[in-house]
Amino acid sequence: MTKTINIELGARRYPIRIGRGLLDVAESYRERDARPGRLLTDSNVAPHYLERVRKALGLAPEHCRVIAAGEAQKTYDGAGELLDWLLESRLSRNGVLVTLGGGVVGDLGGFASAVYQRGIDFIQVPTTLLALVDSSVGGKTGVNHARGKNLIGAFHQPLAVVADLDTLRTLPARELRAGLAEVIKYGMLGDATFFGWLEENLSKVLALDRVALQHVVETCCSMKAGIVAQDEHESGVRALLNLGHTFGHAVETHTGYSTFLHGEAVAIGLCMAADVSARLGWLAPVDAARCVCLVASAGLPTRPPADLGPARFLELMGADKKVKSGRLRLVLLRALGRAELTAEVPAEALMATLVSGGAVAA
Amino acid sequence: MTKTINIELGARRYPIRIGRGLLDVAESYRERDARPGRLLTDSNVAPHYLERVRKALGLAPEHCRVIAAGEAQKTYDGAGELLDWLLESRLSRNGVLVTLGGGVVGDLGGFASAVYQRGIDFIQVPTTLLALVDSSVGGKTGVNHARGKNLIGAFHQPLAVVADLDTLRTLPARELRAGLAEVIKYGMLGDATFFGWLEENLSKVLALDRVALQHVVETCCSMKAGIVAQDEHESGVRALLNLGHTFGHAVETHTGYSTFLHGEAVAIGLCMAADVSARLGWLAPVDAARCVCLVASAGLPTRPPADLGPARFLELMGADKKVKSGRLRLVLLRALGRAELTAEVPAEALMATLVSGGAVAA
Repeated sequence: MTKTINIELGARRYPIRIGRGLLDVAESYRERDARPGRLLTDSNVAPHYLERVRKALGLAPEHCRVIAAGEAQKTYDGAGELLDWLLESRLSRNGVLVTLGGGVVGDLGGFASAVYQRGIDFIQVPTTLLALVDSSVGGKTGVNHARGKNLIGAFHQPLAVVADLDTLRTLPARELRAGLAEVIKYGMLGDATFFGWLEENLSKVLALDRVALQHVVETCCSMKAGIVAQDEHESGVRALLNLGHTFGHAVETHTGYSTFLHGEAVAIGLCMAADVSARLGWLAPVDAARCVCLVASAGLPTRPPADLGPARFLELMGADKKVKSGRLRLVLLRALGRAELTAEVPAEALMATLVSGGAVAA
Repeated sequence: MTKTINIELGARRYPIRIGRGLLDVAESYRERDARPGRLLTDSNVAPHYLERVRKALGLAPEHCRVIAAGEAQKTYDGAGELLDWLLESRLSRNGVLVTLGGGVVGDLGGFASAVYQRGIDFIQVPTTLLALVDSSVGGKTGVNHARGKNLIGAFHQPLAVVADLDTLRTLPARELRAGLAEVIKYGMLGDATFFGWLEENLSKVLALDRVALQHVVETCCSMKAGIVAQDEHESGVRALLNLGHTFGHAVETHTGYSTFLHGEAVAIGLCMAADVSARLGWLAPVDAARCVCLVASAGLPTRPPADLGPARFLELMGADKKVKSGRLRLVLLRALGRAELTAEVPAEALMATLVSGGAVAA
């Protein structure tokens, strides 16, 4: 059964279709409306789904592009190559780009759609848990820069999100766990009940139990839909979705986007954010420990790499988009399920976390 | 006396300040509101105005960037270099980029502003007639591609436009004439009275008569403000502002953006659009002749380069952003002062114009 959650953005309102077997059905992409189309995917996803989606869309093989899998593709130059291809294939401004894959394909393809001929429509078809619950929803597109993650990009809302849960069957276990970092994030930042549900049902989710997965994706997409509708351009509440990301982006930049998957870096960041929150006396130490425990139970890393010292950490965090007039801002937890953006982080607490690597304060 | 024309775009409403001596006054840039700033200009403009604007903004010299003058800078890679510099100089997301120069600086800096950290504010300070009356107003930003002009870009409205007419005093005569092409365009597409005024007062404008210049800039900015407020993203009436541009862009792409200034290519395009319109029986031949005559009186070219044959012309026009599902669309004239976007151009009329190079049909 397909469930639709709408992102309420007035004239730019769009649906997230959540269900099974959606990929193969032309009707899933109905917003394209017979316009010219192009398909972007990566080398991991192509063997499983490229032909199926291509046929559902009725596209010629030369109108599909497969890029190498991995975060290393998500660069300004990578976007340039994609734009070159779109131009060479003469896609007109009323065309639609379909992005089939995880966060990298969605962010890169979304960014290219945002700037191709000053903006064309695109449809997100997420195939990873991370993309299903987070990156495909909300219109944040972008590419990385040597100085930091997602530093170049645009807000560009998709025309629709086609979330086919069957795609998770072919997802490598490591990618599934990485996606769980974002799932845990939603519980930590805004829904203590969901956090408790995750503590009890994590094994079901890891075993791809249908009911559990549907609950996870619907809960996360609903929460994100509500936040994005309130604050499309992240001038307020939307910043809370970055819980753990300022730390995580620093880890990713330090390791050249190659050691950790994005979700793994976020997992580390979630633990560090919980640690700082506990050191400030905001979050009960027992709840900080629960966060670290849940992250660890998901098979995710909880500590930054040993060679990332506090000084370098701070420098990398200083490149974050949330920095405002030179002041670092962090999303921290007032309590489990209650996040807050603050520019008032005492240097000692932050330093203690960076030095200890986030060994939760007792 | 400063005159303000507002672009009415709801929450993104912004002013065009038209006057003299505005550059040196901090108050002209008041929307920046004490936020971090950066200044972009080019090697033609810097010797005249860089220091004056830098001081008015209170910026350090290292927060100003001077690029080589010319359309060849307006590329995706050029925007990448500008983004690198903004990141290296650690401009935060609440910062403001001020673009001081003509269309190239404004389009390039505007595009970088649109994608830097998913969008920062920018202020346009046009210093050419073309930028004063056209490119600085309305939020179209972009860069060129080997396949065509402005094919990569974004709609990103500035925070304000500071139009200091004194800057025209240092503008080379060729640039002034190139700007007149866009001025003539406004008369042709929407205001036959203004067209008649131009026929009578062209010599005053060319002599930089203060009253005449003020009239030209106010008239063009008002017309553009009205059109942009109606149709920000060019889904309708705004396309009329592209009168002459589909031909003009083809000429620019063919000549590698180096032989003709943008306005000169537009001048050729205006004459060709008038010619096609006359061949279709839309525009009276005498009015088509008046268009060519006014363009020529401004010292502008009226015919495409001899080595640009009809086949190549058509191919280049096919890359235009106005192409929709493979169909070429052109802005033509129903009458002097009345433009219309049409997909119904008979191939014979278009071909006759391309073959003749726009020798107005008798």
